Amino acid sequence: MTSSTQPDEAPRTKGARPSKDAPQPKPARPGKRERLVAAASDLVYRQGVAPTTLAGIAQVADVPLGNVYYYFKTKEDIVAAVVRSHEEQLNAALAELAARHRSPKARLRAFVGMLSERAEEAARYGCPYGSLSTELAKRAEGSDPLAAPLMQIQLDWAEQQFHAMGRRDARDLAVELVSSYQGSAVVTSTLGQPEVMVRQARRLQRWIDSLTD
Amino acid sequence: MTSSTQPDEAPRTKGARPSKDAPQPKPARPGKRERLVAAASDLVYRQGVAPTTLAGIAQVADVPLGNVYYYFKTKEDIVAAVVRSHEEQLNAALAELAARHRSPKARLRAFVGMLSERAEEAARYGCPYGSLSTELAKRAEGSDPLAAPLMQIQLDWAEQQFHAMGRRDARDLAVELVSSYQGSAVVTSTLGQPEVMVRQARRLQRWIDSLTD
Repeated sequence: MTSSTQPDEAPRTKGARPSKDAPQPKPARPGKRERLVAAASDLVYRQGVAPTTLAGIAQVADVPLGNVYYYFKTKEDIVAAVVRSHEEQLNAALAELAARHRSPKARLRAFVGMLSERAEEAARYGCPYGSLSTELAKRAEGSDPLAAPLMQIQLDWAEQQFHAMGRRDARDLAVELVSSYQGSAVVTSTLGQPEVMVRQARRLQRWIDSLTD
Repeated sequence: MTSSTQPDEAPRTKGARPSKDAPQPKPARPGKRERLVAAASDLVYRQGVAPTTLAGIAQVADVPLGNVYYYFKTKEDIVAAVVRSHEEQLNAALAELAARHRSPKARLRAFVGMLSERAEEAARYGCPYGSLSTELAKRAEGSDPLAAPLMQIQLDWAEQQFHAMGRRDARDLAVELVSSYQGSAVVTSTLGQPEVMVRQARRLQRWIDSLTD
């Protein structure tokens, strides 16, 4: 495999390739790593982890396969990067919801609204976080460290909101909310019916409204 | 591939192999097909469809790989048989619940109880029906005919019970029940915590109790 040299980030005509032993990639043209993670994220969402190959990721990212190995030695490495990328996006989205809405109820309603906007996609491929986490959990004989964080982030955030509402059963309510959403994604995707998720989201929003502070 | 002859169901010394063109397998010693489906079901549950191979199934079932092709030409055929086998088990379990409990509420409570008995397994591999259906739904570009039936059976049965309770919103309640259970399996498996499903099952039973007939 002629792979581990640093990929040519600058156009070939610019010459001067960096040292083969550079411990960290410092791309002069940022984007290849990001393109690879985005392509992996998309393929993993649409087809699952198991059928996704480094060659397929490289093709979708339009990055030569030899370059891929500079950033990611194995498929495991790129799957871990996909999970980290989802974590960052999820944290950013939740921080934005918290900044936009002052009351915890409004934040929780907006959280459910954000999820239900993905109903069409969910009807084809499920929840991007839930389906990936489920597959990662299944493949580990013990617990897979990549399986939990995407659920944990949602549970912790929802628990904070219910706690801010003064609910002593904040954790249980968070589990109920996240479970309901995840379950609606499972039913929506297996039936191929986005309206199932849209109706369930409306029900969850009514449930949030009905909770006493 | 030296595969499509009928496998020797009787000990080799008994001779007289059946015709190569026999349209239906009529095993003198029933069990190989059942063993193959059981092994496939187990492997698919523990590791998912994509990583499961016919060779792996044959090994677990203790059936020579050459014999497998007599029963199942492709992995698709055996995955379809796994779904059919789940359908039969699920229908039988639901019929038994209906026979054992007269009131629809008691049936629904027992349904939730039956599911929560699998919490330990679910914490490792998720719901056998939900995780399989999710993977099948994802891999199809359109809708996969194998993805829906296991959810549909549960939804239809639960709807019948809610309908028998006189609820006009029977379908919505069925979606809520099945979604909640499926979601608790997702959260339970990704966190590796069986107690999440056990608590959610108790909550669902209280919810069933609280519904007015």
